[in-house]
Amino acid sequence: MIKKNVILNFVGFLLILEGLFMLLGIPFSIYFNDDDIYVLLFSGLGTSLIGFLLFLYTKNKDKEIRKREGYIVVSIGWLVMSLFGAIPFVLHGSIPSYTDAFFETMSGFTTTGASILNDIESLPHGLLFWRSVTQWLGGMGMIVLSLAILPILGIGGMQLFVAEVPGPTKDKLHPRVRETAVRLWGIYAIFTLLETLLLLLGGMTFFDAICHSFTTMATGGFSTKQASIAYYQSPFIHYVIIAFMFIAGVNFTLHYHLLHGKIQNVKKNEEFKFYSFVIIFWAVVIAAILFFSGYGSAEASFRDSLFQVVSMITTTGFVTADYEQWGTFLLLIFFILLFSGGSAGSTGGGIKIVRHLLLFKNSFLELRRLIHPRAVIPVRYNNHSVPQDIISNILAFFLFYIFIFIVGSLVMSILGLDFMSAMGSVATSLGNVGPALGSVGPTDNFSHIPMLGKWFLSFLMLLGRLELFTILVIFSPAFGKLKKYNGILYEFYYQNIFLLVILFSVLNFAQEISVCESYTENGIALSPIKS
Amino acid sequence: MIKKNVILNFVGFLLILEGLFMLLGIPFSIYFNDDDIYVLLFSGLGTSLIGFLLFLYTKNKDKEIRKREGYIVVSIGWLVMSLFGAIPFVLHGSIPSYTDAFFETMSGFTTTGASILNDIESLPHGLLFWRSVTQWLGGMGMIVLSLAILPILGIGGMQLFVAEVPGPTKDKLHPRVRETAVRLWGIYAIFTLLETLLLLLGGMTFFDAICHSFTTMATGGFSTKQASIAYYQSPFIHYVIIAFMFIAGVNFTLHYHLLHGKIQNVKKNEEFKFYSFVIIFWAVVIAAILFFSGYGSAEASFRDSLFQVVSMITTTGFVTADYEQWGTFLLLIFFILLFSGGSAGSTGGGIKIVRHLLLFKNSFLELRRLIHPRAVIPVRYNNHSVPQDIISNILAFFLFYIFIFIVGSLVMSILGLDFMSAMGSVATSLGNVGPALGSVGPTDNFSHIPMLGKWFLSFLMLLGRLELFTILVIFSPAFGKLKKYNGILYEFYYQNIFLLVILFSVLNFAQEISVCESYTENGIALSPIKS
Repeated sequence: MIKKNVILNFVGFLLILEGLFMLLGIPFSIYFNDDDIYVLLFSGLGTSLIGFLLFLYTKNKDKEIRKREGYIVVSIGWLVMSLFGAIPFVLHGSIPSYTDAFFETMSGFTTTGASILNDIESLPHGLLFWRSVTQWLGGMGMIVLSLAILPILGIGGMQLFVAEVPGPTKDKLHPRVRETAVRLWGIYAIFTLLETLLLLLGGMTFFDAICHSFTTMATGGFSTKQASIAYYQSPFIHYVIIAFMFIAGVNFTLHYHLLHGKIQNVKKNEEFKFYSFVIIFWAVVIAAILFFSGYGSAEASFRDSLFQVVSMITTTGFVTADYEQWGTFLLLIFFILLFSGGSAGSTGGGIKIVRHLLLFKNSFLELRRLIHPRAVIPVRYNNHSVPQDIISNILAFFLFYIFIFIVGSLVMSILGLDFMSAMGSVATSLGNVGPALGSVGPTDNFSHIPMLGKWFLSFLMLLGRLELFTILVIFSPAFGKLKKYNGILYEFYYQNIFLLVILFSVLNFAQEISVCESYTENGIALSPIKS
Repeated sequence: MIKKNVILNFVGFLLILEGLFMLLGIPFSIYFNDDDIYVLLFSGLGTSLIGFLLFLYTKNKDKEIRKREGYIVVSIGWLVMSLFGAIPFVLHGSIPSYTDAFFETMSGFTTTGASILNDIESLPHGLLFWRSVTQWLGGMGMIVLSLAILPILGIGGMQLFVAEVPGPTKDKLHPRVRETAVRLWGIYAIFTLLETLLLLLGGMTFFDAICHSFTTMATGGFSTKQASIAYYQSPFIHYVIIAFMFIAGVNFTLHYHLLHGKIQNVKKNEEFKFYSFVIIFWAVVIAAILFFSGYGSAEASFRDSLFQVVSMITTTGFVTADYEQWGTFLLLIFFILLFSGGSAGSTGGGIKIVRHLLLFKNSFLELRRLIHPRAVIPVRYNNHSVPQDIISNILAFFLFYIFIFIVGSLVMSILGLDFMSAMGSVATSLGNVGPALGSVGPTDNFSHIPMLGKWFLSFLMLLGRLELFTILVIFSPAFGKLKKYNGILYEFYYQNIFLLVILFSVLNFAQEISVCESYTENGIALSPIKS
């Protein structure tokens, strides 16, 4: 039997935290004398209050989270966070459509970085800060953060961590989940601080520096400038962001090892080596092509090439140059890089380097297996044999990824996108990257996507962020069979949560329609939707 | 140690056969009073003579073919066949460039159907017949044909059959390979005859009927008309070709079962059911879209939709309508169908239906494995558990396919093709389909592809036709290690064959250059290359 109260209790806790983080933008609003102070105050306190009531209501219950609750909690958690996180944008009116605000917030929490805004600078600072915070929270995982606090409240959560990171990395930092989470969170915070300082040194304002550090370390890609990093001319700023994107795309347990002087663990880590190799290889190839086709100086060619390659592979999505102008061959490479992904255990999304590595190894071993059909030839990774069930899991992940990409592209093409934009928008959403190709390229935004498409892409972002399986498992027939095993024929085990979500959606749709009507009545064309 | 003589002996035998088949076009040339009689006579007798000398020279040797020779024989066999098969086109001058002639012939033997011709009707009938024969021979597999004859000559070849069909079908017709091959060949011939009769009934000329039957049953797609099947207005002809494309895309062992009244075996065959379902599903969906967007009558919409879907899924590549005019959504569907492939054990190429089916099953079982991590849950196919090593092999096949597709697309984009044409040309070559998208769409041809691109696509056709592994194994490091196991440090085991191939290529390049020069000197712009 699924424990509804455990789930609701956790969601309540998440909402309390979310509300508090919303309030963090208020000092900036006061300093810059913006008009979003009361919006943030109201949204923040309201969200926290709802969370607190939910938390209180479900307090005195069994709090042991098992695997099956883990899957639901993680999925529902991100969904509810995005549903509430969109409120300030709508209340303030800078994103009048709830669909757009939800897309933007889901893009934030999943660290995708795809935006529907076409005049970012017009937003008040408090909201811009909240927008960056969604990525920062999403980046390391609201969930990992909660792992550090939930145990204090007496709720165990190893299963959560399993649900959160179903990737092949089982290399534990520390036996106790809570301490692990606190340490990873500490490393994350230190790097964020360090980047902020360096960006200040490079000449950014304090506000821009902290916002960009938040979204770099989260491999998110939201910028406070419409032109993204291309706004800044300073090579120093470019290199700082390259460095921290690279850092954010590395498995955080390696940073932990490095901090403790265990350089050997880093040196012999195959994923790290492959990750570095892929980045350097493509950066050099693309830089050479750019340079010899007269793009600019060797340094500028290399910097723009490296920036864009690191940005795509780590799934950050920052932009310093419009790679759509670089010719078909390079465009195709960037399209392919949308499927790369960072390291497992990093803040990057996508398929992940280690999965590619193990799939490559397994495929080439198959050739040897063909010649020696009776030999048992296991895949080796970091000097260990990889069990066949992990390989099998990775292969299933890859196939689902491709399958969802294909179906998604068809859906987007039905909604009217052209060949390249349909494939690009799905690949970038599923991989949590941000920019793509065609009409959703590096200098475009997602505002022209039809409403249904925005909800669909938001769903793909969540699916990609939670490594597919977390969500797929919930909808799989096998999950339903759990109920039978527990002797209950038909139980609406997560009905309550879905009722909440549906109610919320209905309310917000009603709001959206009324917003549209009021704008039409007053004759004001404030809608950011350009077609 | 690899037995060179076995390989050369086999190649010799293939060339004898090929030469004889070239001569078959002569009666048509005489009847139609064409100018290619002597070209065919000379090429046919010459090829047979070279084959006969090679065969004689290697006669009194050990003829036992083992697995490792099997891989080389199959790969080299197709290559040499195409190298010689291109000669008549060049000698006659209707395809002056050897590159083009080789592309056309490889496209024939691999049953791809991609053509560089832009005025098919101008070719003499003998050459057109030879062009159709290459597909017919390639279709069922020159190799299966040889399996029926080689054993008479005392050469066993079960390993060959393994190399030829490394797919998951091990459902043997008969324990003895030779009889199996004879029976399959018989079924193939009967269906070809039947289709010829029906096409005659539909109003085709005898020549066109036999040529189209040859290329339908081979799922090849070469037509004697530039407009492909769109040339024929008769719905009857369309339906006949649909029916025989469908038949050719079915596992031939099922036809054998059906002929022996074992309908149960067909009914419970999962691949056949899935194959039929996929075809009907897409045909109905596309027909509905066409009809409701005002394409024409319900019958015409359904017929064009069904024809195109069957043509793509069976990898035939015949065309009755320009699907590039059907909108982005349908274009994307046809792009996806390029990756489908017919049934295993059919004449169709591509990934094959059974592989898709098993991959689907395995992926969805993975969700159940996540929930019940300790349970052993095997994939079931036709009421049998599929061993894990077969699943592993299919997964590796799929990943290599995707990998080669990606690398291939990059190569073609370097050669100057646009995004869609680069991906389309590679997908259609690797899948042995024929038409693709963009500049190599259903109403275009491959003549404008740069020379290097034609050789590359020819290689991809061979790679796809031989189910990737046959070729990949030869180039894998593991294959090289065989030598070590046999105590020989470095042996040029297939050096002799490659020397022949290289010599041939050099000679032909020289010829090509001289052809180009002579055209330039005489000021005649006969080159079929339009840019």
